[in-house]
Parts: sequence; structure tokens; C-alpha cells
Amino acid sequence: MKTLYDMERSGNCYKVRLLLALLGEDYEQVTVDLTRGEQRLESFLALNPRGEIPVLVEDGEVIWDSGAILVYLATRTADRHWFPDAALARARVAQWLAVAANEVHHGLAAARAIRLFGRAGDLAHSQALGRRALTLLDQQLARGPWLAGGAPSIADIACYPYVSVAEDGELSLAPYRNLARWCRDIESLPGYAPMAARPPSA
Amino acid sequence: MKTLYDMERSGNCYKVRLLLALLGEDYEQVTVDLTRGEQRLESFLALNPRGEIPVLVEDGEVIWDSGAILVYLATRTADRHWFPDAALARARVAQWLAVAANEVHHGLAAARAIRLFGRAGDLAHSQALGRRALTLLDQQLARGPWLAGGAPSIADIACYPYVSVAEDGELSLAPYRNLARWCRDIESLPGYAPMAARPPSA
Repeated sequence: MKTLYDMERSGNCYKVRLLLALLGEDYEQVTVDLTRGEQRLESFLALNPRGEIPVLVEDGEVIWDSGAILVYLATRTADRHWFPDAALARARVAQWLAVAANEVHHGLAAARAIRLFGRAGDLAHSQALGRRALTLLDQQLARGPWLAGGAPSIADIACYPYVSVAEDGELSLAPYRNLARWCRDIESLPGYAPMAARPPSA
Repeated sequence: MKTLYDMERSGNCYKVRLLLALLGEDYEQVTVDLTRGEQRLESFLALNPRGEIPVLVEDGEVIWDSGAILVYLATRTADRHWFPDAALARARVAQWLAVAANEVHHGLAAARAIRLFGRAGDLAHSQALGRRALTLLDQQLARGPWLAGGAPSIADIACYPYVSVAEDGELSLAPYRNLARWCRDIESLPGYAPMAARPPSA
């Protein structure tokens, strides 16, 4: 059995929840409440010395870092398109995983955290980096249906969460037509699950 | 034939040069002079829209992002320990590739760029993040000979360059005994090549 240390509003955790939903895999959830600093407790730091969620535990093995967890799940599954075996196709996925961890994380996710959760930081700087992320992704999605090759991969799963909530950081998606199409395509995948179990208004 | 768009003093480029040296693979080098802004030329942005080195071109295929290039080269080679096939072993490598791209890059590499090259930035912040990177790596290297498992992997290759020049950013390696041992082990690998072709004093 898999256990995911998780928080609903975390886009990094949602990356893992989304892939697990698309793969149809069951798991248990343990909420780590970042608003109460639970990621800094000794018991949690023993799981992940970085003090971050998500963390996946399976059969006593602990895996941290959202990108690494995606690599783990995608390597195990029979559908090879999620993290291809061929070197060039795999490298293309790794490129966009790097954009997810860099421009998307320090741009889109940071702007959202500053606006929604009051995290300290330079909003204008994060928004500028976020626009750079949106432009990079939109240009790539003008060239093909998915970020890396002709099928969805963990590159798409890693980039989608913070793109889909970019407006939380006051970044409009309106100028990015290819991104809008790609978001709809992801939301049409069999098994797709939204970020929040229930819409905030429910 | 492989062509590497490169600059000698760039630790991100050195990651790729080091793996190529360890694998014994030949390549051509094209210097991209960051001090003259050559990474912002239209001709270079056509290769890498992020405007960063390294970029690897092989048989007309362009791969950017140092981590993605490492994944590409390691996936193609017969020595599977560089990027293992088993899901858990591969995830462990991906974890430390993420640390290389995050704490090491925004900590150690940023502090070095501020001190050596006059890049704008908050030195104290970068140094604090750099110390966090050194601590994380040192703790992991207390548990085993290499960052991920019992053999060297691209995780080691991705973290080593900016660790080895941490003192350029005024971060002492003296407190980190496991890191010092690991650096010596990397420097003892057959085919190891230093960052600079000739020592600066030569």
C-alpha cells in the first residue's frame, strides 16, 4: 500500500495525486498541515530532510520530491509514454520536468503562495518568472499536442497544476491559446481528478 | 557527432563535460560567451528558448537543461548505474537531481556567481541556501558511498561541480567530512576531468 503525505491546496502534491488518479492507483493520504508548520516536526523531517510535501511511502521505502515521485510511479507502470525508455524521448520529458521545478515553481507557484497564503517574497519578480514559464510552455505547445512527444507524459503532469491555478497569482492565462487547449486536453484524460476534492464553493 | 554549447567556467556545463569524460565519449565544443551575452542572441535562443548553456546537439536533435542532458547520456550508455532502470533506484537518482537543480543551483551556484562574476542577488540568502544544500548532501553521504545507491550516478555528477567550487561563494567545505570524502572519490573515478582544462595559475 502507498501512503501520500499531502495537503489538498499544494500544487506539488496535486501532481502526484493527478498521476495516481490517471494510473488508477489506490493510496492512503496523510495530511501535513503547512499552516501549522507540521512539515518542520522532527517526525516529518525524518521522512524528508527538506521539510516539504509530497512524500510517498511504499513498502517502507520513502520517496520525496514531487518530480522524483512522478519518475518512480511512471517507471513502474506498463504505459511507457509517461516516462519513455528511449533516450531522446526521455530527455525531452526531463527538460520539461526541469521547467516545472524551476520557472513554474519559482514563478507561478511562488506568485500564488505570495498572493493566496501571504508567503514572503517579491511578487513582481515571481510574476515575471511566471510569465516566462507560461510563454515557454505555450511556445512548446504550439509545436505539438503535449509537452514532450505525441502522448501525455509526467512533464505535462508536473507543469499542469500551477498553470491551472496561475490566476491565483494574478497571472492571466488569456494570452496563451495553446496552454488553454492543453489544459482542456489534460482535463479530458480518463481518470482526471481536479485539484480540490470539492470545489471551494461547494 | 555531438556538439556541446559550453563555457569553461560554467558548473552546469561542467556537469555534462564530466559525464562525457567518464563515459569516454568524444564531442565538439562551441563556446557561448556569457560575458558578452551570446546566450541572448536570436541564433542561440533558436536552440534553447531559455537562453542558457549547456545545450547538446546530436544528429540534429537539440537537448537543453543540464539535468536532461545527463538523463539523455546516461540512458544511452550500457553502464546502467548512471541512471538505473529499477523504479526505486531511479527515483533516488531523480531526488538528488532535484536537489542539484534547486538548493545547489540557487544556493551554491548563485553565491559563486554573485562573488565571482558580480551577478545581482542576495549573497546572504544564497549562502544560507548553499549551506542547506551542503548539509543535505553531507547527511546523505554519511549513509552510503554515493548519493543514490552503491554506485556513482548522474545524481553525483549533477551535485559535484558546484560543491567542488563552493569556496568561490565563500562557503567553507571544512565542516562537511562526508562531502570531502565523496569529492575525492569522484576525483578518483577513471576518466575524471577537472572543471578547467588547465589550472587558472598555468
